[in-house]
Amino acid sequence: MLRLDEWRLLDALDELAGIGAIEGGGSARLALTDDDKVGRDLVVGWMKALHLDVRIDAIGNVIGLRAGAENLPPVMTGSHIDTVRTGGRYDGNYGVLAGLEVVRALNEAKVTTRRPIAVAFFTNEEGARFQPDMLGSLVYAGGLGLNEAYAAADKDGRSVGDELRRIGYLGSAKPGALRPVAFVELHIEQGPILDEENVQIGVVESVQGISWTEYTVTGVSNHAGTTPMRLRRDAGYLAAAVNVFARRLAWEMGGHQVATVGSLSLRPNLINVVPNHATFTVDLRNTDEDKLKEAEARVAAHIAEVAKQERVEVAAKVLARFEPVIFDAGLVDRVEHHAKALSLSTRRMPSGAGHDAQMMQRLCPTAMIFVPSVAGLSHNVKEHTEAADLAAGAQVLLNLMVELAEGA
Amino acid sequence: MLRLDEWRLLDALDELAGIGAIEGGGSARLALTDDDKVGRDLVVGWMKALHLDVRIDAIGNVIGLRAGAENLPPVMTGSHIDTVRTGGRYDGNYGVLAGLEVVRALNEAKVTTRRPIAVAFFTNEEGARFQPDMLGSLVYAGGLGLNEAYAAADKDGRSVGDELRRIGYLGSAKPGALRPVAFVELHIEQGPILDEENVQIGVVESVQGISWTEYTVTGVSNHAGTTPMRLRRDAGYLAAAVNVFARRLAWEMGGHQVATVGSLSLRPNLINVVPNHATFTVDLRNTDEDKLKEAEARVAAHIAEVAKQERVEVAAKVLARFEPVIFDAGLVDRVEHHAKALSLSTRRMPSGAGHDAQMMQRLCPTAMIFVPSVAGLSHNVKEHTEAADLAAGAQVLLNLMVELAEGA
Repeated sequence: MLRLDEWRLLDALDELAGIGAIEGGGSARLALTDDDKVGRDLVVGWMKALHLDVRIDAIGNVIGLRAGAENLPPVMTGSHIDTVRTGGRYDGNYGVLAGLEVVRALNEAKVTTRRPIAVAFFTNEEGARFQPDMLGSLVYAGGLGLNEAYAAADKDGRSVGDELRRIGYLGSAKPGALRPVAFVELHIEQGPILDEENVQIGVVESVQGISWTEYTVTGVSNHAGTTPMRLRRDAGYLAAAVNVFARRLAWEMGGHQVATVGSLSLRPNLINVVPNHATFTVDLRNTDEDKLKEAEARVAAHIAEVAKQERVEVAAKVLARFEPVIFDAGLVDRVEHHAKALSLSTRRMPSGAGHDAQMMQRLCPTAMIFVPSVAGLSHNVKEHTEAADLAAGAQVLLNLMVELAEGA
Repeated sequence: MLRLDEWRLLDALDELAGIGAIEGGGSARLALTDDDKVGRDLVVGWMKALHLDVRIDAIGNVIGLRAGAENLPPVMTGSHIDTVRTGGRYDGNYGVLAGLEVVRALNEAKVTTRRPIAVAFFTNEEGARFQPDMLGSLVYAGGLGLNEAYAAADKDGRSVGDELRRIGYLGSAKPGALRPVAFVELHIEQGPILDEENVQIGVVESVQGISWTEYTVTGVSNHAGTTPMRLRRDAGYLAAAVNVFARRLAWEMGGHQVATVGSLSLRPNLINVVPNHATFTVDLRNTDEDKLKEAEARVAAHIAEVAKQERVEVAAKVLARFEPVIFDAGLVDRVEHHAKALSLSTRRMPSGAGHDAQMMQRLCPTAMIFVPSVAGLSHNVKEHTEAADLAAGAQVLLNLMVELAEGA
């Protein structure tokens, strides 16, 4: 069995985390910023040093291809290297850099696999700067046209198309042109379950469906002291009521339902003025599409009810909507097999977060490997995974990639 | 009877509103900004043109003094000319400029009153930039030391002392040195009651007590998809729960109790991250001190309960706290008398907003005259009072000031 070099992997994670480094140990490399460009350049350099054939497509996805003995569709692994504003060092980066270590192990052993092997990183997975999230892999899988993707703009009005060109990652390859025979993504769990249960490998069977909506509320600003409660048209009150309702809804529905109000701003945002304007987001997720629809409908009904009582106007804008995804059962079994073969403890689970793998499942059989996140922390500078767990996950990936690359 | 010239008053209001003018017809002259300086210079110029002896004190309060026949303590009127960020054109300005029109009417009639007459505008009444609000009149009345007032800083860390010096309004007069025999403040209601009831003059008997607290909540930021609801420590949820509770509390307590969450910010403020940080304010007001204390205690108890459930830390900072103020009964009667003598309809009422007059009541018998605000709008560019109502209020002020200045 080939052995993956965990020390090189840890060094590479350290070096990449140094780009856009923020206080506390995390990184901020929002998609298509200057820091993202520096991170991309670093990883592309590593790909070239490993003799990979680097291809950049028209949405900025980067694929490093290692030739196989036969001219067949490749086995692909990969993830993303963009981060949220307060990102950790493992989210996304781990899957990409472990993929490069798979290549290095093969190179050093001078192994030529039957099929080519590809290592990819996809553009704007996080959605922290541009919506929808998982933009690059969505385009890759044919779920979103290039022009629509280019038009997505950040809060300052800068578009994906312009920013790709500005940082030099508007490539010429057609997204999805390289259609893999299978895709495997290695990722940290970003949740507390493996850590709490002391399990080493998460065998990911599915990804929760995601519903992101932004609400803009228009009320009337007025003096906080002189306006009787019955005459108020408080935009901030509606936002607060929805936050409280979303929490109650998630508890009532139970199971895998989660609900979050993560972003909120008020205007004029003064102590003694009733807010006439609120913008806030609701993030709903469930592994079951019918239940996700139920959650969406109940939130919408609650908003309509409070808006009527409070006499405020509410406009809704869907920022992202993905149905739950079920991964390839055969490939999921192989993840479990290789983990058990290494005497690692396993647990079958859904993914609570969205991942590029869910888009790739549209193109080819896909699966994911999870490793524990200490205390479940992610999107947080304190995001951490123990070195032994990082090594174990990467070894599972290596063994599975070799099997797939040698297989029929 | 002397007649007040309403056209001059309307012209002066227009001209002052043009400084820091914002879209929609309002003004933004936050205390001690460049625009506030330009507004101050304009009003000081008018005072000098009316031959007033202009005195600037060490907290930037400006008093224009008209000599009387005898060297007695003056009768004082006035208000403020700073605004909130989305201020209207009448709040504060009306009382100051009507005071100048009282002086003009006396000048033009060549009347020398027995007592001197003073017209004042006080620094940072709004509290939109520096806390506490009513800072200038509070210092004037001896309720806050100069050094503490100087140290008050805005969100960018700039202090009252530095900003007073920068705009040239750090005067040499001792605040409160000129102790009036009576103080009368003319102001728009800033609430809907007079407009709804079609009453011309509000006879203000009292001012609601004010309690402003800023809460800073520290939770744990985490992934919105992977973190089960039971493990969340969501700073934004606490802020929302308090907003909803404050609304319910005000309804339950009834009477004059109002409660507002006007300012709120989350961090990292991203769609898919549970907020680890929230800062928000609670504004509570009541005409009854015991009830105001009850409201404060119930909000504090609710915050403690939610903080415990959610396992977040909450720090509270009192930004302003004023007990309800009862105005001088004799002077309140004179306001009502002069309004009725002009055949104006009247209504006795408390003030829901804080005013400089409540500080002056600590120094001398004080009262207020209210005129209607159309639809109760204030702290809003659509703030409006009909010209006839502005004229009526100013005439009541003139008649009362003459009576007081001629009296014993």
